[in-house]
Amino acid sequence: MLLWGRWKVVAGLAGLALSLELLLRYMRRRKPIREVLFFPAPVTCIEPVLYPMKQCSCPLPHTDSAFSRLLLLLLRAQRSLELCVFTFSCPSLARAVLLLHSRGVRVRVITDNDYMAASGSQIGPLRSAGVAVRHDQSSGYMHHKFAVVDGTVVLTGSLNWTVQATQTNRENILITDDRVIVKAYQQEFERLWQEYDPASYDFFPEKENK
Amino acid sequence: MLLWGRWKVVAGLAGLALSLELLLRYMRRRKPIREVLFFPAPVTCIEPVLYPMKQCSCPLPHTDSAFSRLLLLLLRAQRSLELCVFTFSCPSLARAVLLLHSRGVRVRVITDNDYMAASGSQIGPLRSAGVAVRHDQSSGYMHHKFAVVDGTVVLTGSLNWTVQATQTNRENILITDDRVIVKAYQQEFERLWQEYDPASYDFFPEKENK
Repeated sequence: MLLWGRWKVVAGLAGLALSLELLLRYMRRRKPIREVLFFPAPVTCIEPVLYPMKQCSCPLPHTDSAFSRLLLLLLRAQRSLELCVFTFSCPSLARAVLLLHSRGVRVRVITDNDYMAASGSQIGPLRSAGVAVRHDQSSGYMHHKFAVVDGTVVLTGSLNWTVQATQTNRENILITDDRVIVKAYQQEFERLWQEYDPASYDFFPEKENK
Repeated sequence: MLLWGRWKVVAGLAGLALSLELLLRYMRRRKPIREVLFFPAPVTCIEPVLYPMKQCSCPLPHTDSAFSRLLLLLLRAQRSLELCVFTFSCPSLARAVLLLHSRGVRVRVITDNDYMAASGSQIGPLRSAGVAVRHDQSSGYMHHKFAVVDGTVVLTGSLNWTVQATQTNRENILITDDRVIVKAYQQEFERLWQEYDPASYDFFPEKENK
């Protein structure tokens, strides 16, 4: 009887320890990032977002918006930014990308060959600044609009990186750090990055005959 | 001493019960839906997806694809389908939507006024079949491409509902049942549904002067 009592105590204490461990794990669990931004966003001053220490007295509203939030999320990048976007002509988004590039963040951009040289495209200025850019060479569109920040957060949705998309259209961007989802987008980016390696371009197939 | 021993037993048993409860909850927790589909998808036969009991001996491959998966996820709808899509000209996706409508699923479609009457648009046939459709009347695009299935699953991404998008372009669709995300898209849909109520159209502003 005394032995049975001791076993109950041992089992009870083990149970208590296990329940405490589970409770602590539950309380310590990482809060997931899951957010949706909807556009159009009102036009606001983005200088404080790009340069938090800078004062700005321009006449634009100095308030938060879906667009300033998008910039903030991108500017969190410390190590890498993979950007896979159909059309990129928004100067403010180009400024954010160039800022990251100047900070030493590894920026890689994949875009669509049909629109990269369109009027207002920011792909030229990005390349001039030394940002690595690759593009498709197919008749179909490279129509993705996603970004991977530091390999840990994905931003994806309907929004092309244009002024019309951010200021006029009805658009959405979903932001998540779900590992399964981030991994899927990261892998798609790497797959396309390899596929669009300039070494395998066949714009000049006649060269192959030489 | 005996009393202390009893308290230990009571505390231990309580701990065991709590740990068992936590373990059971952990084991019973719902597996989240989180999936990403990448396009272009190979052209495959979709008849078995639309009509699982039907045999098909057409020459197309009878294999799974990102497109058949998309159809399957949509066809799971039992109660409602909210669809918010810029361009809708893919006949196979229209067949899936009409199938849901014929089964009594409440289908509501929001689309863009600039493209809804374009050649090949499926918006006309959907309306003719009795599907409720609303559209923007602004100069900006209603550029969303998302769907909410039964108020519990969101499908969102870059893919317009066109044959080119599914068969030729590089596209993605993220699928999730995360409640925070689903709620955000559902609310955006309801907001636009109200905003695009035909009662508030102002195509004919001269009427207001009468």
